[in-house]
Amino acid sequence: MARTALFPGSFDPITLGHENIIRRALPLFDKIIIAVGENANKQYMFPLEKRMEWIRQTFEGDSKVEVATYSGLTIDFAVEKGVDFLLRGIRNPADFEFEKAIAQANREMNPNLETVFLLTSARYAYISSSIVRDVFRNNGDHSLFVPKSIRLEK
Amino acid sequence: MARTALFPGSFDPITLGHENIIRRALPLFDKIIIAVGENANKQYMFPLEKRMEWIRQTFEGDSKVEVATYSGLTIDFAVEKGVDFLLRGIRNPADFEFEKAIAQANREMNPNLETVFLLTSARYAYISSSIVRDVFRNNGDHSLFVPKSIRLEK
Amino acid sequence: MARTALFPGSFDPITLGHENIIRRALPLFDKIIIAVGENANKQYMFPLEKRMEWIRQTFEGDSKVEVATYSGLTIDFAVEKGVDFLLRGIRNPADFEFEKAIAQANREMNPNLETVFLLTSARYAYISSSIVRDVFRNNGDHSLFVPKSIRLEK
Amino acid sequence: MARTALFPGSFDPITLGHENIIRRALPLFDKIIIAVGENANKQYMFPLEKRMEWIRQTFEGDSKVEVATYSGLTIDFAVEKGVDFLLRGIRNPADFEFEKAIAQANREMNPNLETVFLLTSARYAYISSSIVRDVFRNNGDHSLFVPKSIRLEK
Amino acid sequence: MARTALFPGSFDPITLGHENIIRRALPLFDKIIIAVGENANKQYMFPLEKRMEWIRQTFEGDSKVEVATYSGLTIDFAVEKGVDFLLRGIRNPADFEFEKAIAQANREMNPNLETVFLLTSARYAYISSSIVRDVFRNNGDHSLFVPKSIRLEK
Amino acid sequence: MARTALFPGSFDPITLGHENIIRRALPLFDKIIIAVGENANKQYMFPLEKRMEWIRQTFEGDSKVEVATYSGLTIDFAVEKGVDFLLRGIRNPADFEFEKAIAQANREMNPNLETVFLLTSARYAYISSSIVRDVFRNNGDHSLFVPKSIRLEK
Repeated sequence: MARTALFPGSFDPITLGHENIIRRALPLFDKIIIAVGENANKQYMFPLEKRMEWIRQTFEGDSKVEVATYSGLTIDFAVEKGVDFLLRGIRNPADFEFEKAIAQANREMNPNLETVFLLTSARYAYISSSIVRDVFRNNGDHSLFVPKSIRLEK
Repeated sequence: MARTALFPGSFDPITLGHENIIRRALPLFDKIIIAVGENANKQYMFPLEKRMEWIRQTFEGDSKVEVATYSGLTIDFAVEKGVDFLLRGIRNPADFEFEKAIAQANREMNPNLETVFLLTSARYAYISSSIVRDVFRNNGDHSLFVPKSIRLEK
Repeated sequence: MARTALFPGSFDPITLGHENIIRRALPLFDKIIIAVGENANKQYMFPLEKRMEWIRQTFEGDSKVEVATYSGLTIDFAVEKGVDFLLRGIRNPADFEFEKAIAQANREMNPNLETVFLLTSARYAYISSSIVRDVFRNNGDHSLFVPKSIRLEK
Repeated sequence: MARTALFPGSFDPITLGHENIIRRALPLFDKIIIAVGENANKQYMFPLEKRMEWIRQTFEGDSKVEVATYSGLTIDFAVEKGVDFLLRGIRNPADFEFEKAIAQANREMNPNLETVFLLTSARYAYISSSIVRDVFRNNGDHSLFVPKSIRLEK
Repeated sequence: MARTALFPGSFDPITLGHENIIRRALPLFDKIIIAVGENANKQYMFPLEKRMEWIRQTFEGDSKVEVATYSGLTIDFAVEKGVDFLLRGIRNPADFEFEKAIAQANREMNPNLETVFLLTSARYAYISSSIVRDVFRNNGDHSLFVPKSIRLEK
Repeated sequence: MARTALFPGSFDPITLGHENIIRRALPLFDKIIIAVGENANKQYMFPLEKRMEWIRQTFEGDSKVEVATYSGLTIDFAVEKGVDFLLRGIRNPADFEFEKAIAQANREMNPNLETVFLLTSARYAYISSSIVRDVFRNNGDHSLFVPKSIRLEK
């Protein structure tokens, strides 16, 4: 049985934390679809195309990783893509509470969709896209926090 | 590739929360080994044989579920059984903190062993073996908290 | 002695979680005033009239429940209505921290006003108005999360 | 309708935190029964009679407060005393998680029994019976942490 | 060796909580620079000059306290001022998680800069600038929450 | 003014986490006294002499570090040694809650004693003495978790 997971997020931008979760989840799944959310009500620092390009660069050559974009509810996109699993990383208790509420609401709406969690490795657990954006905005050394193959450009 | 997970615990006794995690994890793995810990320094309410029997009754007919016993470090037993994944349920932030420390220590000792987490369903998340033992000890209705097929006996 | 509680909130919209807290608090009080906040600095998805109407529909026939609207500080409205108790639901540790700070600031400003807490039932504790709004905005099945008698309309 | 609450605990010994919760809950109830647990499996520092005497001294003259002792499940004693409410104080997120699990297990076993929570006042929230016992054992000034009318004796 | 700490924040406005941390940290350092952030992307309720003036009034006569303003990354300003320590207060677990992530990102960018934490005293730990602004906006008694020497003016 | 800190603990045994906190705190203080608690009511895995010897080996040549032993209340020993500061490391929210209660009780008993906190570095934050003891007891590779210069012996 092929096991496919959807890893949804804004990826504004992708961080070493995201990359860490996805690489460690690869042995668990036959395919991972990284689903980049595009929400009309939300302000992003980086345009959709850039966010997707950086993810593609990061996982270049990984045939099990696919990059897609979606708007609307994550569970609707999961059904559209025919996946049975959502994949999420948890860094800290605040993440846990947030993810727990989302996962339970999703299960209520679609009981067949299971959310699987990995814990972000300790050395990346402090990294968030919002810290990266703040460092980037203030000309700090953002390369410490994002995948090696990419460099953010304004 | 066959994916096998080890689900370690004391199961003193197995609860609806344990059962919930294992059943929901079945589609994710090709086999789940429920590993019942036997620790010389620990006091159990129920003997090992009873704890294992209740688990076997609960998953009778599930060919993907195997029950085993172990002492010593969980990662050593995982290597012995040739599994690549540990499976754990998280109910609340206290669980999360505890599991995070254990998972990181395990990864330090064996980087090839990945811990995968599911969140216990809301309706079972308050159940712990220690609450069950307390209810049982005081002649309360423990059947509300343990798998349907079993009845605890003193 | 008649005991009256104020249950303040935005109710944008009322959820099954709100309803659960209020119904379970009814035996504790002689009257519960549901106080719908209207804050000029805040953006609501649903207009005040709609938010109040849905609450009225939910508690139709409950003579102990009254619906009111207010702006300004909750403690000032509590004094205006002559209540001695604030009623709040807590779902998770993040709620707890937030409510603790508010309750202590309120007590500092008005030591006679006591805040009473119930814990949201497990099966509703993941529901928040913001999840409902997100589901509603994306045409998901919001009826799973709101009181049975109401249907949100755009 | 008379509203009676049961406030269960070990009270080994009663602290300023316990006293704070009970005094602030008095306007909410017509009677509060302080139920001192006596558990054969538990080690106490102070004997049952001393623990009860200190509580009686603390609330001497408060006709709404009654002191009782019990063993077994709290919900069974609540039914025996005919109360409809359990009263509990919450000091911090760890308390919250613990109390949430207990309250949900109790509700499962007896849906008619509601648990009502007050938050311990900030100035007493760090006090626990275990800190008091530690200070007492090491001849520190325990009088800072226990009700004014009592002095612990060995 | 002279030890200088930077205490960064928005101080919109300074609260009794901020004052408490700084006064208690004075014996630990030879100088404390209170660094008032001015971020072009952020909306403040009070203008920079007012925020700085209130801090100066609060610590008038304290020769070890200096007030400065900065924009950009805190670690860059710390290097510019030649300090070796950042000083932060923690009030609750949510603060802790937030501060932990920031401190780890800062250490990654500048390993020589150490962040030192004090815990806000219990009696002030519920106070936040956002509660003060809310009380102020609604004409509540904000003087309960800010240093004695100052009075906010619109 | 000389600033001396007391770093109290059981050190059963000292871990890389303890070492990390102490080394990073050295620039902040003129002297750090590592105070090894010996509590008659507590069971230790390693005898006092061994616990002290390992600490001495770890900080051999660090003239600012002193090792001492004590029983009784930490604040009493702090007064006896004439220190003005307690030093503590925080790894996670559970630590934070525990340390907060202790620090507030200590401040109540001795307002002149200030507790200063550093956050354990991310790469060591999962390590606890109890995990080390468990690994050691089960013949795992404890050298991953303790200072390099020492090797535990039974």
